[in-house]
Amino acid sequence: MGLIVQKYGGSSVRDAERVMNVANRIVEAYDAGNDVIVAVSAQGDTTDDLIAKAEEINPNASKREMDMLLSSGEQISIALLAMAIEKIGRPVVSLTGWQVGIQTDSRYSAARIKHVNSERIRSELDKRRIVIVAGFQGINKFGDITTLGRGGSDTSAVALAAALGAEVCEIYTDVDGVYTADPRIVKDAYKLDDISYDEMLELASLGANVLHNRSVEMAKKYHVKLAVKSSLRRVEGTYVKEVNQVEKMLVRGVTRDNDCAWIALCGVEDTPGKAFEIFSLLSQKNISVDLIIQSIGNGVKKDISFTVTEGDLPVALQILEDNKNIVNMDDIKWTKDVSKVSIVGAGMVNNAGVATTMFEALYDAHINISMIATSEIKISVLVDQKDAERAVVAIHDKFMLK
Amino acid sequence: MGLIVQKYGGSSVRDAERVMNVANRIVEAYDAGNDVIVAVSAQGDTTDDLIAKAEEINPNASKREMDMLLSSGEQISIALLAMAIEKIGRPVVSLTGWQVGIQTDSRYSAARIKHVNSERIRSELDKRRIVIVAGFQGINKFGDITTLGRGGSDTSAVALAAALGAEVCEIYTDVDGVYTADPRIVKDAYKLDDISYDEMLELASLGANVLHNRSVEMAKKYHVKLAVKSSLRRVEGTYVKEVNQVEKMLVRGVTRDNDCAWIALCGVEDTPGKAFEIFSLLSQKNISVDLIIQSIGNGVKKDISFTVTEGDLPVALQILEDNKNIVNMDDIKWTKDVSKVSIVGAGMVNNAGVATTMFEALYDAHINISMIATSEIKISVLVDQKDAERAVVAIHDKFMLK
Repeated sequence: MGLIVQKYGGSSVRDAERVMNVANRIVEAYDAGNDVIVAVSAQGDTTDDLIAKAEEINPNASKREMDMLLSSGEQISIALLAMAIEKIGRPVVSLTGWQVGIQTDSRYSAARIKHVNSERIRSELDKRRIVIVAGFQGINKFGDITTLGRGGSDTSAVALAAALGAEVCEIYTDVDGVYTADPRIVKDAYKLDDISYDEMLELASLGANVLHNRSVEMAKKYHVKLAVKSSLRRVEGTYVKEVNQVEKMLVRGVTRDNDCAWIALCGVEDTPGKAFEIFSLLSQKNISVDLIIQSIGNGVKKDISFTVTEGDLPVALQILEDNKNIVNMDDIKWTKDVSKVSIVGAGMVNNAGVATTMFEALYDAHINISMIATSEIKISVLVDQKDAERAVVAIHDKFMLK
Repeated sequence: MGLIVQKYGGSSVRDAERVMNVANRIVEAYDAGNDVIVAVSAQGDTTDDLIAKAEEINPNASKREMDMLLSSGEQISIALLAMAIEKIGRPVVSLTGWQVGIQTDSRYSAARIKHVNSERIRSELDKRRIVIVAGFQGINKFGDITTLGRGGSDTSAVALAAALGAEVCEIYTDVDGVYTADPRIVKDAYKLDDISYDEMLELASLGANVLHNRSVEMAKKYHVKLAVKSSLRRVEGTYVKEVNQVEKMLVRGVTRDNDCAWIALCGVEDTPGKAFEIFSLLSQKNISVDLIIQSIGNGVKKDISFTVTEGDLPVALQILEDNKNIVNMDDIKWTKDVSKVSIVGAGMVNNAGVATTMFEALYDAHINISMIATSEIKISVLVDQKDAERAVVAIHDKFMLK
């Protein structure tokens, strides 16, 4: 018994039946004696429908007005969810982002939370009311509505949990928790009971679409214990928290990310600072380069290859084309048919054998590795996209993640 | 050149094309050098769609949550309209009821405006921005969203015009203005150039659904000049203002109201206060009685007949049934097949011949009158519903309203 923050995404409240289901889950927590705050996203396709309406009128609408438009989506879902709880017969109140006082900066459509007022919520909790808060939205210093961008409702939930000192922030999704690999690819994949913030951050950024990075970063910063749970099935989820590493497995999960494209610059002039010049051209246009390999030059020419997201590929190629005078090369090659396969685990930093075992698994499966990158808690390799699923299965088997 | 408030209803902004049309009208007024404030309703069927969503989850939802839900409708329309104006390339900002500071009492779903803050709007106008305000909604002293009930957006517009001292408040609808009779019934009906507040109030309450009474009352109180105009056609509308009566026609309009039911109590005990007893029973249940006739009693028995709205008929009959001990009578008759036909005109109070002319018109058309009621600026008669349209035409012809 204490204070719980729950978060439900758009698919969890997409129709009347799902809304009633969520209402029942909330009331369970309330009836167990907890104070309950709930952050909710807009229903199912509401946001997409609103975006389509805007596009029809003005594809270049200001972000300020887009935020005014889109924030209506959560206003609808909080009202409906509150009505569902009223039907069950529990005291409840819905609050928009501005009513709570979720104060953000003024970057419309990608605002950052600066402060969460707790007075209104506390006064409602004191009346033993369930408090339903619109996720994804806040208010800036001008009194205008802002939205938080992708994964915004997760961030709202964590911010509320941090501001109110919740025992746990439960993120309800349509999966049961965080798995060692995508269960659609790896039959033996299983759910983790817990995972550290850092591991979750790597998994999230590597394509395990469970939690958005910003919310995990905020949870880590404010020591908010997260639980990833299913909104549909009654099973234990995965806790994201500070985990004692000693007893833990080295490798916690295997992920695949198809959203990458490979670019190779062949026969670039081998002079100091050439790579720096190339990558600063790209970063000036906000293109993030991920994996990078540079061949050992012969003093005259060298090869540089790297990956970007598929969406950034056309712009990246254009930049290289436009700057031929700077980026002088013999040939340029590129492909989208690559995948990044990664293993994540906080323990691997102190265990040199992990990378070897991973490469061995791929070798045994006759899968070619074109690039490799390592960090303290992950190892990523680039493989042909057609080999990616097999790679995930082979690695998962090799580490006996079961 | 000055400050203009415009109001557009839901059908005027029901789709992208209509929104662009309205945006063009607004920009015209702006480009002519005016400061422009616009109050907008929710798009087309949005409100009905939202109500349907709520009904599916909880038909007895609290009014507080209904207001939270429904107010999202105007938030959508103000954002879309602002985007349309951005597309034309004029500076614009949309504001919700709470952002403006449209302060109301706490009667959710039927709130009354208590005060309108002008600071935010004035600061936006000072930047030469067009200001788009969500109609129909406000905020109460608890910081919660309220809605104003039927005709609420008209009321929002008039309140804004009063608070900001606008030259005129233009109400855009799908009709061209206020007509001497419903043009669908009377071919010769024509648009009035102007009409007084009191006449408009009578016409509105008698079934000419152009302006809601509350907005006309507020306009009268704060001396706001109203203009009723078409949002689709470029024609002069009708001004509602203080009109100099001397040169004006006696009769300004003929209306028909089918939403009435007739109840006759036959053989009621003829004792003092009996009618009062009956009507207080009805008023306790919020049933408004309109026309009333009481026969001259013979000291033993009398007849009392009156009209109520069709919606109130079942409740009224039930109340009479439940109170047989008080309302002792020989027989009760009722019918929905009646219509109230009325003439309105501020001049008629000093001209006894008006009623006679009206009755003559009906007599010539062989239409029977079952009840009559008169006030300073209107005369209403009850006729069979099948005769109502003929009655309107006959009266319109007789007064040569052309």
